[in-house]
Amino acid sequence: MTIASYGPSTLPGSRAATLRDAFANGRLVRVAGAHDGLSARLAEEAGFDSVWASGLEISAAHGLPDVSLLGMAEYLSAAVAMQRSVSVPVVADCDTGFGGVLNAAYTMMRYEEAGVAGVCIEDKIFPKRNSFVNSGQKLLDVDEFGRKLEAAKRAQVSSDTVLIARTEAFICGLGLQEALTRCHHYVDAGADAVLVHSKAVDSGEVVSFMKEWNHRAPVVVVPTTYADFSAAEAQEAGISMVIYANQGMRAAITAIRSTWATVLAEGSTAPVEPRIASVKDIFAISGMDQWLDLDR
Amino acid sequence: MTIASYGPSTLPGSRAATLRDAFANGRLVRVAGAHDGLSARLAEEAGFDSVWASGLEISAAHGLPDVSLLGMAEYLSAAVAMQRSVSVPVVADCDTGFGGVLNAAYTMMRYEEAGVAGVCIEDKIFPKRNSFVNSGQKLLDVDEFGRKLEAAKRAQVSSDTVLIARTEAFICGLGLQEALTRCHHYVDAGADAVLVHSKAVDSGEVVSFMKEWNHRAPVVVVPTTYADFSAAEAQEAGISMVIYANQGMRAAITAIRSTWATVLAEGSTAPVEPRIASVKDIFAISGMDQWLDLDR
Amino acid sequence: MTIASYGPSTLPGSRAATLRDAFANGRLVRVAGAHDGLSARLAEEAGFDSVWASGLEISAAHGLPDVSLLGMAEYLSAAVAMQRSVSVPVVADCDTGFGGVLNAAYTMMRYEEAGVAGVCIEDKIFPKRNSFVNSGQKLLDVDEFGRKLEAAKRAQVSSDTVLIARTEAFICGLGLQEALTRCHHYVDAGADAVLVHSKAVDSGEVVSFMKEWNHRAPVVVVPTTYADFSAAEAQEAGISMVIYANQGMRAAITAIRSTWATVLAEGSTAPVEPRIASVKDIFAISGMDQWLDLDR
Amino acid sequence: MTIASYGPSTLPGSRAATLRDAFANGRLVRVAGAHDGLSARLAEEAGFDSVWASGLEISAAHGLPDVSLLGMAEYLSAAVAMQRSVSVPVVADCDTGFGGVLNAAYTMMRYEEAGVAGVCIEDKIFPKRNSFVNSGQKLLDVDEFGRKLEAAKRAQVSSDTVLIARTEAFICGLGLQEALTRCHHYVDAGADAVLVHSKAVDSGEVVSFMKEWNHRAPVVVVPTTYADFSAAEAQEAGISMVIYANQGMRAAITAIRSTWATVLAEGSTAPVEPRIASVKDIFAISGMDQWLDLDR
Repeated sequence: MTIASYGPSTLPGSRAATLRDAFANGRLVRVAGAHDGLSARLAEEAGFDSVWASGLEISAAHGLPDVSLLGMAEYLSAAVAMQRSVSVPVVADCDTGFGGVLNAAYTMMRYEEAGVAGVCIEDKIFPKRNSFVNSGQKLLDVDEFGRKLEAAKRAQVSSDTVLIARTEAFICGLGLQEALTRCHHYVDAGADAVLVHSKAVDSGEVVSFMKEWNHRAPVVVVPTTYADFSAAEAQEAGISMVIYANQGMRAAITAIRSTWATVLAEGSTAPVEPRIASVKDIFAISGMDQWLDLDR
Repeated sequence: MTIASYGPSTLPGSRAATLRDAFANGRLVRVAGAHDGLSARLAEEAGFDSVWASGLEISAAHGLPDVSLLGMAEYLSAAVAMQRSVSVPVVADCDTGFGGVLNAAYTMMRYEEAGVAGVCIEDKIFPKRNSFVNSGQKLLDVDEFGRKLEAAKRAQVSSDTVLIARTEAFICGLGLQEALTRCHHYVDAGADAVLVHSKAVDSGEVVSFMKEWNHRAPVVVVPTTYADFSAAEAQEAGISMVIYANQGMRAAITAIRSTWATVLAEGSTAPVEPRIASVKDIFAISGMDQWLDLDR
Repeated sequence: MTIASYGPSTLPGSRAATLRDAFANGRLVRVAGAHDGLSARLAEEAGFDSVWASGLEISAAHGLPDVSLLGMAEYLSAAVAMQRSVSVPVVADCDTGFGGVLNAAYTMMRYEEAGVAGVCIEDKIFPKRNSFVNSGQKLLDVDEFGRKLEAAKRAQVSSDTVLIARTEAFICGLGLQEALTRCHHYVDAGADAVLVHSKAVDSGEVVSFMKEWNHRAPVVVVPTTYADFSAAEAQEAGISMVIYANQGMRAAITAIRSTWATVLAEGSTAPVEPRIASVKDIFAISGMDQWLDLDR
Repeated sequence: MTIASYGPSTLPGSRAATLRDAFANGRLVRVAGAHDGLSARLAEEAGFDSVWASGLEISAAHGLPDVSLLGMAEYLSAAVAMQRSVSVPVVADCDTGFGGVLNAAYTMMRYEEAGVAGVCIEDKIFPKRNSFVNSGQKLLDVDEFGRKLEAAKRAQVSSDTVLIARTEAFICGLGLQEALTRCHHYVDAGADAVLVHSKAVDSGEVVSFMKEWNHRAPVVVVPTTYADFSAAEAQEAGISMVIYANQGMRAAITAIRSTWATVLAEGSTAPVEPRIASVKDIFAISGMDQWLDLDR
C-alpha cells in the first residue's frame, strides 16, 4: 500500500474500465458491501474485486433506516470516502437516483466526477423503502424509469462508467416476465448492466431469469436471502457480478455487541484484548507509516 | 426506543447535566468509543453511560491516519451523527481544538450548538499525531493552552457543557510533576475536568497522579495500553470517567476480516450467516419500525 | 454585534417565539431572502424581521437551477449558516420537504434541531420546479400533503417552531377555491401558517384569498411578480408575513456584472473602488474585531 | 452554455494545462475572486481567464472572519462548487495548507482530485489572519514551508496541476530581500509559481521584486491596495497572473445594502425592480433551460 494508490491517482472512468473488462471476459466480479473508508479497505484487503457503497449500510451508519431519508449528498460523501480508500472500483447503490429524471442525470454527473466506477439506480418510486421491508414496495412506470436511464447516460462523460439498472420486479412480486420486460427496456434505454434483485429463499428467481435473458447484457445479483448461492453457481448461470451487500456490517454489529457486553460485565477490556485487532492494526489499515513518510 | 428519543428532543446543555451529576455524585462514568450513528447506538444499547466520539476512529473510518488531516467539519459531522443516535451524552475528542486560540473557541461554539455534551481538547501542538505514534509528540506551551481553554469557556453558552482539558504530559515522557502542574493550570483556566492520558503498560502513571491531585476536579482516563485497569480500581482511585476509546472498532475489524475471508474461501455467505447479525437486526438498530410508524 | 449574539446562544424554539408573537400581535413580519451567512447578515443589518433561506438562491449559489437537484443536506447547511449569522429568526424554504411523508418529518427534525425558527413546505410533487417555470407544475394530492404536515408536526419538539404550509394552487392555475380548500385542510393537519403563492402581475389572487380566509391562521405572501404590493397594503389585507424572496441576489448579480465589466474594460479596479464596499467593511460584517477580542 | 461544459467533463489536470500554456506564452492571466458557483459563473461570463476561490470571500460567506476558523472541508466544498460551475480553471486560495507538512500534501490530493487547476498556499503560521489585519502576521520558518511545498508536490498526480507558493514577506514588513530569498527557496522546493503579496498603496514592492526576480518562475500579484496598477503595467513588469480577489463580493455588499434599504424605506420592491437582474436572469445563469432539456 502506498499513499499514491489511494486518492487522486485514478482518473474518472479508469477504474470503470476494469469492470467492463471483467464483463467482457466472463470473469465473475465479486463485490463486498461497505459504508466508509475503513470497511471499503477491509473489503479490498480481503481480495474482493469491487466495493458496493451500500445504501442500507450508509443509512444505518447514520443511525437511520433505509427509507430514503438521506439524500445524494450523504450517499456520495460515503461513496467518495470508499473510492478514495481503495484501488478497486466502487459500485454505488444510488437507490432511485434520488428523485426523478433530472436527479438521475445529476447523480451520474456527480458520481462520475468523483471517480466512482459504477452507478446503480433502481426502478422503485422515490422515496423508496429497503427491499426487505414487507410493505410499501412500488415500481415506477417502466417508461419513466427508462427516461431516467436515458438522462443519466446523456449526463455521462467517460464511456467507461457503468450504469446499472436495478429492477425490483421480483421484490414487488411481479414475476419473471415483468423482470425480463423491464430489463430489456432498460438496456434499450442505455443501461450497461442490469441488477435483478430477489428476496426469495433460494436462487430460483434469478436462475430462471438467466435462462431467458440470453446474455444480452451483464447481470448482477445480490444473494442476501439465498445465501447458499455460490460464486461458482453464479458463474455457471452466466451471472457477471455478485454483491455481498451487508454481511460485513452485520459481522461488525455482532462483534461490537459481544465486545461491549464483555467489557461491562468484566469491568475492563483485558478479556477482549486477545480477540480484537490492535491499535497498530488500525494504524496499518489507515496508512499511518506511508503518511508519515510524506514528511521526510 | 422512540424516534423522539433520537434527534432534536434534547436542548443544548441538558445532556451535559447528566455528566455533571455523575461527577458530583462520585458515580463513575463509563464511556465507549464510537465513530458513527450505528457504533454510538451499539454503545448505548450495551449500557454505557456516554459515547466518546473518537478521533482515531473517525479518522480511520475516513481511511486516514489520526494525524490531524481531518478538520473540525468532519469531526463535528461524525459527533452530531452520534449525538443524534443516542440519548446518553456524547463526549467529543476534539484533538487540539483544530488550531489555535480562536479555533478552540469556535470548536466550543459549534459542538455546544450541536448538542454535544462534552468537548475535550488536548495540549499538543497542532497538527498532532495520535498518542500511540512513537515520534513527533510535542506539548504546546502551558500558558498558550490555558488561553485556548479560556477562549473556549468564553464561547460557551450553557453552564452545563463540560470542557475537558487533556494533558499529554505522560505521553511526551515529561512525568508526574509536569502533568500535575499543567492540570492545575488548566483548571485555573476554566477546564471542568482533566484527562490524564498515559500509554504505560500499567496504571502506575494515572494512579500516581490521582494520589497527588486531591480531587480538585474530575479526572478522566483512557486505559488502552493498561487494559487490565478495572472500573472498580478506577473508582477506588477517585477517577470520574473511564473511556474505552477504540475497542469497538477493533472488534469490528477482526470480525469483518474473518467474515470476508470465509465468504471468499467458501464461495458464499452461507457459512457466516449463523454468526452475524441479521438484516432485521439492522432494521431494529436503525429504528425502521418507529420511522414507518410516523406515516400512519 | 457581539460574538455571543451569533451562534449557539439561542435555544431551539426561542427565535420561533418571536415569529409567533408577531403573528399574535398583528405585526407584519418583513422577510428578506438570502442564501449564505453574509447575505443573511445584510438582511438583518438592513432591519428585516426575519431571513428567508431561499431555495432559488441556494440552488443558484451552487450554480444549479431550482429544480430539486440539491437535497436537504445542502439546503440545511445553507440555512444553518444563515441562522448562525443572525439573531432574527430564519424561515427555511424546504421545497416539498425533500420527498414524501417521512422526509417531511425528517426535515422538521433536522431544521428544528439546528435552531431554524420556521419550516415551509409546499404542496407540489417532488421533484419540483421553481414556481416561475412555465411547465411541469403539478400539485400533490391534498390528503397526501396533509399527511406530510401531520408527520412533520409529530416530529416537532418545541411548541414554538413554526410549520408553514405553502400552496401552489394559484401557480398551477387552479383558482381561489382550490387554494382555500387546501389551506383549510393544511391548518386542520397542523400547519401553523399558510403561504399562498401567486405569480400574477398584481395582488388580486392573494387579496381575494384574504377576503375569504377570515384570519383562520396567519398568511404569508411572496410578492415577486406583483412587486408594487406594499407592506402597508399587505398589513391592511390581514397578511402576517411578506417575503421579498430574491431581490438581494438579483441586486448582487447586476452589481457584480457591472463591476467585472468595468475592471476588464478599464484594466484595473481603480474605477470601481469608489462604488464598492471596502475590505474593512467585509471585516466588520464578518465580526473580525469581536473574534480577535476572544484572544485577549 | 451547455450542461456538458459544467461538471464532470474535464479530467484532473486538463484545465491546469491552460494555466501552464498562458505562463509559457507570456499571456497575462486575469483572475476574479469568487466564493460560490454563482459568483464564479459571473466571473467567467465577464471574460476572466480564471476564478480565484477566495478565502476571505468564503469565510465571509459563512459569516466568519478570515482567521482560519474554517477548515479544508468548507474551502474545498466552495472551490468545487466554483470549478463545477465554470469551464475556466479555478485557482484555490488554500491559506497555509490548513496546517503542517502532511496537511499541505492532503490539500494537494483533495483539490487535485476535485479537478481544481491551481492550489495556492502561503508561508504564514497556521492559524493565519487575513493579510490586511494589522496584528498577528507571522511567517513560518522558510525551510519548514519548503517542506510543505515538497510534500504537496509529492502528493500531486497530474503534472499539470499548478502549485503556487505565496510569500507574505512584504505583508510582514520583511522587505524585498526576504521576499526574494523565500521565493527562490520555494521554487527550489517545487513551486510552479510564486505569489508575492503586498498591501502597499502602490505597486512599488511588487515591481521592485520583478526587477530582481529575472523570470525564474511565473509571478502572481493581488493588487487590492494598489488598485490603480493596471493589467498592462503588470504585463510590462513581467507578471504572469493578476488576481482581483474580492471586488465582486464588495460590489454585491453595496448593492444588497442599497436594495434592502430602499425596499424597507419605500415599502415594496417596485422601486428596485428596474435596477436589479430578473428572476429569468437567475434561471439563465443557473442553466435552467439546459437542465430541463435533459428531460426531453
